[in-house]
Amino acid sequence: MRAVDLIRKKRDSGEHSREEIDFLVSGYTRGDIPDYQMAAWLMATWLRGLSLDETAALTEAMLHSGVVLDLSGLPGKKVDKHSTGGVGDKTSLILAPVVAAGGLTVPMISGRGLGHTGGTLDKLESIPGFNVNLSLDQFRHVLRECGLGLIGQTAEIAPADKKIYALRDATSTVESIGLICASIMSKKLAEGIDALVLDVKTGSGAFMKREEDAVRLAEIMVDTGKRMGKKVVALITDMDQPLGRAAGHSVEIIECIDVLNGQGPGDLRDLSIELSAWMFYLGERTKSLDEGRRLAESMIASGKAREKFKQGIELQGGDVRVIDEPQRLPKARAQVDVLSGSEGYITGTNCEHFGTALAMLGGGREKKEDGIDPGVALEFHKRIGDGIKKGESLATIHYNADGKLGEAKAMVAASYLIAPEAPRQTSPLIRRIIGEETV
Amino acid sequence: MRAVDLIRKKRDSGEHSREEIDFLVSGYTRGDIPDYQMAAWLMATWLRGLSLDETAALTEAMLHSGVVLDLSGLPGKKVDKHSTGGVGDKTSLILAPVVAAGGLTVPMISGRGLGHTGGTLDKLESIPGFNVNLSLDQFRHVLRECGLGLIGQTAEIAPADKKIYALRDATSTVESIGLICASIMSKKLAEGIDALVLDVKTGSGAFMKREEDAVRLAEIMVDTGKRMGKKVVALITDMDQPLGRAAGHSVEIIECIDVLNGQGPGDLRDLSIELSAWMFYLGERTKSLDEGRRLAESMIASGKAREKFKQGIELQGGDVRVIDEPQRLPKARAQVDVLSGSEGYITGTNCEHFGTALAMLGGGREKKEDGIDPGVALEFHKRIGDGIKKGESLATIHYNADGKLGEAKAMVAASYLIAPEAPRQTSPLIRRIIGEETV
Repeated sequence: MRAVDLIRKKRDSGEHSREEIDFLVSGYTRGDIPDYQMAAWLMATWLRGLSLDETAALTEAMLHSGVVLDLSGLPGKKVDKHSTGGVGDKTSLILAPVVAAGGLTVPMISGRGLGHTGGTLDKLESIPGFNVNLSLDQFRHVLRECGLGLIGQTAEIAPADKKIYALRDATSTVESIGLICASIMSKKLAEGIDALVLDVKTGSGAFMKREEDAVRLAEIMVDTGKRMGKKVVALITDMDQPLGRAAGHSVEIIECIDVLNGQGPGDLRDLSIELSAWMFYLGERTKSLDEGRRLAESMIASGKAREKFKQGIELQGGDVRVIDEPQRLPKARAQVDVLSGSEGYITGTNCEHFGTALAMLGGGREKKEDGIDPGVALEFHKRIGDGIKKGESLATIHYNADGKLGEAKAMVAASYLIAPEAPRQTSPLIRRIIGEETV
Repeated sequence: MRAVDLIRKKRDSGEHSREEIDFLVSGYTRGDIPDYQMAAWLMATWLRGLSLDETAALTEAMLHSGVVLDLSGLPGKKVDKHSTGGVGDKTSLILAPVVAAGGLTVPMISGRGLGHTGGTLDKLESIPGFNVNLSLDQFRHVLRECGLGLIGQTAEIAPADKKIYALRDATSTVESIGLICASIMSKKLAEGIDALVLDVKTGSGAFMKREEDAVRLAEIMVDTGKRMGKKVVALITDMDQPLGRAAGHSVEIIECIDVLNGQGPGDLRDLSIELSAWMFYLGERTKSLDEGRRLAESMIASGKAREKFKQGIELQGGDVRVIDEPQRLPKARAQVDVLSGSEGYITGTNCEHFGTALAMLGGGREKKEDGIDPGVALEFHKRIGDGIKKGESLATIHYNADGKLGEAKAMVAASYLIAPEAPRQTSPLIRRIIGEETV
């Protein structure tokens, strides 16, 4: 078998066998296949696509390029959630303690933010001392102690994905349904989970702007997971506007603590409860989704989820005092309001631009090597359907450096679509559920 | 400008500006753009194509990545011919001395054989002592002395093409009309020529199996050459069977000497005269194509072309005695006939396989690093339309090692299509001429 022939096959719309996919992935991971051949194959794949069989084979080859965690010694089912990313998307830090408090194990290996989206690891690192770089042994220990662990991808987990992802990033081959699926699923399945809930975002703040693309990705991920014997459901959720009332790092930790305290924004709370309910149900902790919802709500109302979060923070070296004293989290030194230039109703947002503006101010990464300023934030005062007066504040920017403040302010202002009439309808938070019928 | 954005643009079917093409080619030649980004761009280009403007810009960028010869000090117009390659295609070694003898300068920078096709340089090297590796200064000297020089691509000529070609070879991005055009034309235009005759082969022994593909390539090359102020015409010629009666290295030199002696196979002689006539006409040596034909014929009949070839061989260090004593050329030690298993008429050939069988016996390269056995040869006894008896010899194989002889023999035998009825029509040697109306 030769890489050059496999590139030609994909170029000519051929379908690879499992052996061919294995050859490519293992050869590339070992360094026998050079970057330039993988780059040509990735571009051919981007343009020609992958079948369901090829996607499953690619996922499995990438999964087995590294360690698959064996958590069978731990009590209860192991469940996780993965989100395709958006602006203000922080449900992980709510549902992980809720579900762990409810008796399941949540071995969550997360990513960092890039471009307009935030990353769970970056948010956690705004908690002083919190260490996301645990070894797999330490991770297992934390999971045994409290049922909840939140770490970054280690070198042992799906090394093929790490290498391929870096190459995709440099060769404009990121946005391919099959490649995205294999990248996500290989890492998630390496966690040794029994069930997975996918939160596939769609709308102006999501990678998949069109709902049909989100549905296609969801279907392929659900199919791939099921082929590998896992229970998988995908929720297609709205990202036409930020989730919750804030985007940033410290500020999102505070919103999560608010929800765990029984308060916080309704949309964030609702989605977190819904995702937790699915995790309970797929993890066979409850017999129905409704029972799952009730269990999630009771974990919040009883304060058990809050305590679980505290315990998790402590086990990973973080300062637990932030739960009761959020002022201990880094905060930006100055703030400025973004005022509306017109009167009317918010009919939509160019949501991705909120994330870009935040990154511009240091609250996100433009390049992978960039650092993050955890105190920088956007606070959103208006949601789609709300009325707005001229001169009223749309959002508040919390900033440290003012070099790009003017640009960021203009970008935030321009990202609100304001019209004289209220929108006739707004998207539901959960637009569709994929895979429900087969679990 | 960033390479990753240009890759995305081509991936999404965008058209590059001249500046973008320059950025890619010069960046890659300098090493600022890595192989993997160029590989992704090449695959996107293979699949999305290049416009005429893009092809011309690419050709020019590749041309100016190196030295362009200035031959303005030499007498007469500078003309060359390029063939896209086939089996038994040896017209260069006839037309170059014919045209030089007729008073024009022929600065021919040629390639080596790869896969099923032979290369002019390899054939020349079967002449003991012949040196194809002249410096550009030595090349200029030889051209001044005898109007005819035959060398290989030097490091100074279109270095971008050399680097890009190697990458295309490893990434299955060779057969792209725009990329092929830029590769050929950048090297040919670097010769400092005024006019170029293209011999675009089509049929079972050509790279372009379908005539419409050959015509498209020819049209793009003619267009590109004309945009750069050159007179260019393309002949679409038949490669459904080998040209002449033999394929190999020594054996093709002998066929060329035969033609220069006023003998040799009719098809080889006819095509060589026709290509020479076009060179005379485009090089403004004759007022008409007919006059060009007569001049070419007279150069052969008078022995002047033969003397010119001798002079050229001597100037490049070769043993001129081979002209009168062809037995001085390397010869294979053994020969075996390939017998027909049936009776009837030759209706076609799988011509590419003749070249592959020859390479298998050492008379061609499977990989670029391979050496060539110049004595190995195939001698063809039957042409399309000829009758054949069962047990009669179709071809003779001249070989040294017999390791793959059985396989090669079977391949040659299977490459003749034999039917009970003679074919109703055979392809003309010259199928079409492209660009004629505008010269």
